[in-house]
Amino acid sequence: MTGEMNDCRAAKASMNFIAEHIKKVASKLDINSVSDLVDNIMGAKKIFLMGAGRSGLAARAFAMRLMHMGFQVHVVGETTAPAVQPEDLVIAVSGSGETTSITNLGAIAKKIGSKLATITSNRDSSLGIISDVVVIIPGRPGEELDHNDYQERRMIGYPQLAPLGTVFEISALVFLDSVISELMVRTGASETELKMQHAVFE
Amino acid sequence: MTGEMNDCRAAKASMNFIAEHIKKVASKLDINSVSDLVDNIMGAKKIFLMGAGRSGLAARAFAMRLMHMGFQVHVVGETTAPAVQPEDLVIAVSGSGETTSITNLGAIAKKIGSKLATITSNRDSSLGIISDVVVIIPGRPGEELDHNDYQERRMIGYPQLAPLGTVFEISALVFLDSVISELMVRTGASETELKMQHAVFE
Amino acid sequence: MTGEMNDCRAAKASMNFIAEHIKKVASKLDINSVSDLVDNIMGAKKIFLMGAGRSGLAARAFAMRLMHMGFQVHVVGETTAPAVQPEDLVIAVSGSGETTSITNLGAIAKKIGSKLATITSNRDSSLGIISDVVVIIPGRPGEELDHNDYQERRMIGYPQLAPLGTVFEISALVFLDSVISELMVRTGASETELKMQHAVFE
Amino acid sequence: MTGEMNDCRAAKASMNFIAEHIKKVASKLDINSVSDLVDNIMGAKKIFLMGAGRSGLAARAFAMRLMHMGFQVHVVGETTAPAVQPEDLVIAVSGSGETTSITNLGAIAKKIGSKLATITSNRDSSLGIISDVVVIIPGRPGEELDHNDYQERRMIGYPQLAPLGTVFEISALVFLDSVISELMVRTGASETELKMQHAVFE
Repeated sequence: MTGEMNDCRAAKASMNFIAEHIKKVASKLDINSVSDLVDNIMGAKKIFLMGAGRSGLAARAFAMRLMHMGFQVHVVGETTAPAVQPEDLVIAVSGSGETTSITNLGAIAKKIGSKLATITSNRDSSLGIISDVVVIIPGRPGEELDHNDYQERRMIGYPQLAPLGTVFEISALVFLDSVISELMVRTGASETELKMQHAVFE
Repeated sequence: MTGEMNDCRAAKASMNFIAEHIKKVASKLDINSVSDLVDNIMGAKKIFLMGAGRSGLAARAFAMRLMHMGFQVHVVGETTAPAVQPEDLVIAVSGSGETTSITNLGAIAKKIGSKLATITSNRDSSLGIISDVVVIIPGRPGEELDHNDYQERRMIGYPQLAPLGTVFEISALVFLDSVISELMVRTGASETELKMQHAVFE
Repeated sequence: MTGEMNDCRAAKASMNFIAEHIKKVASKLDINSVSDLVDNIMGAKKIFLMGAGRSGLAARAFAMRLMHMGFQVHVVGETTAPAVQPEDLVIAVSGSGETTSITNLGAIAKKIGSKLATITSNRDSSLGIISDVVVIIPGRPGEELDHNDYQERRMIGYPQLAPLGTVFEISALVFLDSVISELMVRTGASETELKMQHAVFE
Repeated sequence: MTGEMNDCRAAKASMNFIAEHIKKVASKLDINSVSDLVDNIMGAKKIFLMGAGRSGLAARAFAMRLMHMGFQVHVVGETTAPAVQPEDLVIAVSGSGETTSITNLGAIAKKIGSKLATITSNRDSSLGIISDVVVIIPGRPGEELDHNDYQERRMIGYPQLAPLGTVFEISALVFLDSVISELMVRTGASETELKMQHAVFE
């Protein structure tokens, strides 16, 4: 019994499940919206990333890469993030598209006149409908989110234990890293581009 | 030409490459070390996560899940992280296993007498050799890291643009989430276990 | 001319101004509300600190001290902050008492049934009127805040350059450290209490 | 007895003690080093702030103000902090001047060829002796620090409960805000300068 428990079958099953999901997300990716996102990143004066909880960690991981590539990029809420201006791009990461704090900031971004891009599972969400660019990253089918405020969920202790709940955040992270590949190709970061091509096909 | 550039082939190739890598990591996972990690997590009084840069984000994502499951968990460097004690478990996430600040803290953890677990690509690294538990998450073959100090690399601006460099951090993140699945099975979090089983096979 | 500019008169004047303000704050401190705050801290199961921008830094500095004293304390928004429960105390730091994100969280805390304490310049603010304990830390006379949303102000780039604007945050920080002194006396942390007494009178 | 305890005498004494200390720090301020610091800030391409624990919070509070004034400023360790370059200024805040992680980063800054300024109580510390600019902020007389590594102290749980230990961090914070006043005067931020003058003398 314990032996059965100690073969870590759940761990392996979980990793393979996530890998399969990432492939599904890649195959369903809407090229136009991804292309719009890349164009907006390349055309922005400054880029701001925002997200709550684990989505916020995915947003930060992307911000770090954009900084490596030489973009002027900031994470909303970090110490030295300056004011958002009309020529800037604000990118929100939110599975439900309903996280209250992020939705509020998205609305402010639109009021300022900056571009707003959202990475979400939910096109018809509060964030989705006000965004200039929406990239859909499917969560698992049938997913129902009944608590739309991230900080409220944190305070209430809503049990979001299922690793399957991670599908959005990890998929979003992998997608955002793939946007870096795309940016490298488009900006002609040649040596690194070659390295990337090499690795993809090795 | 532009049309070719705008089909986002690099983005899709990158996502599929990462998904394939995750599957490879799952297939090569050393069951004994994973089982040791799970045992140490379940036996610890408090759990501390640490990592630099994107590895640090993976560490935090895991810490968040452990907190959801009811563990006493802290991220080293966050405001309210208390002192590490002998009955505690410190988990380091470091691809190279040589990140100076993390290695220093690992040595302190051992001096204190707490358990040290490391998630790394490099068993023979400074962190690997002092750790009680080492889980190997392979980076890409032939990877060579010539700057072993993360903060130094940050300051020097070492160009780590290649999305392929992300393979470790994302793989570590997916692995750590799969540890949550394993913990759910072992702690008999029954309703969520069922939900997990359901999702794995749907 | 340059000589005049280089004597750092502004810097010295600013430091003395702040020191005088701290003394004024100390003399006007409402003993009852401070005593209520201390009682609530000592009676809480867990303590949560929250605040935006520089007020958030003061909140964190206090959280760090409470952790040193052995309290179960968390900063809202940090990775491992658990759910707020009815037996907990949430402490907000907000000069205006109108910072949208903090006010929203304060309302959630009350909905949960936990205690809410607010450190603010403005008793009649949104946060002030829903709080169980309000400690007034005067900002400068005649202060007018026309942007009540901190994150909105950050995004819009509202020019808050005047060091005088710092009077609240620094005063709040000094006040909160003085609460630590008070807690040391009440909990009878004798050796440290003696040390404190010594220093006060040296 | 309890009545005596509830009059919050310790809290008031602590606030007055800190205010007096700030005045002492202002009176002993070395004008030349402050002027050097201001010159280096105004001459830097980018400015980096760093510090551990509560000193790190003071560093961040200063970074936020510099950002408000339009400087290119970053906090070491935050997501989007870029590489340090020779034309940059790195400012360390460390009471002891011996915090291992900060001292290591200071040495890297010097290796890169950037300027290094340190705010510390200890001119002859590891950080002090390698810095281009040292501003001395006295802690309390007779202060002895036997644990020089901040993270180590955090891990070991060194009892730094005495509010008097806060004298450095609060003094450093007040000093750094006064540097903002000085910068406003020198950069001729006229309307705000007037506002500042008004407030200083009101």
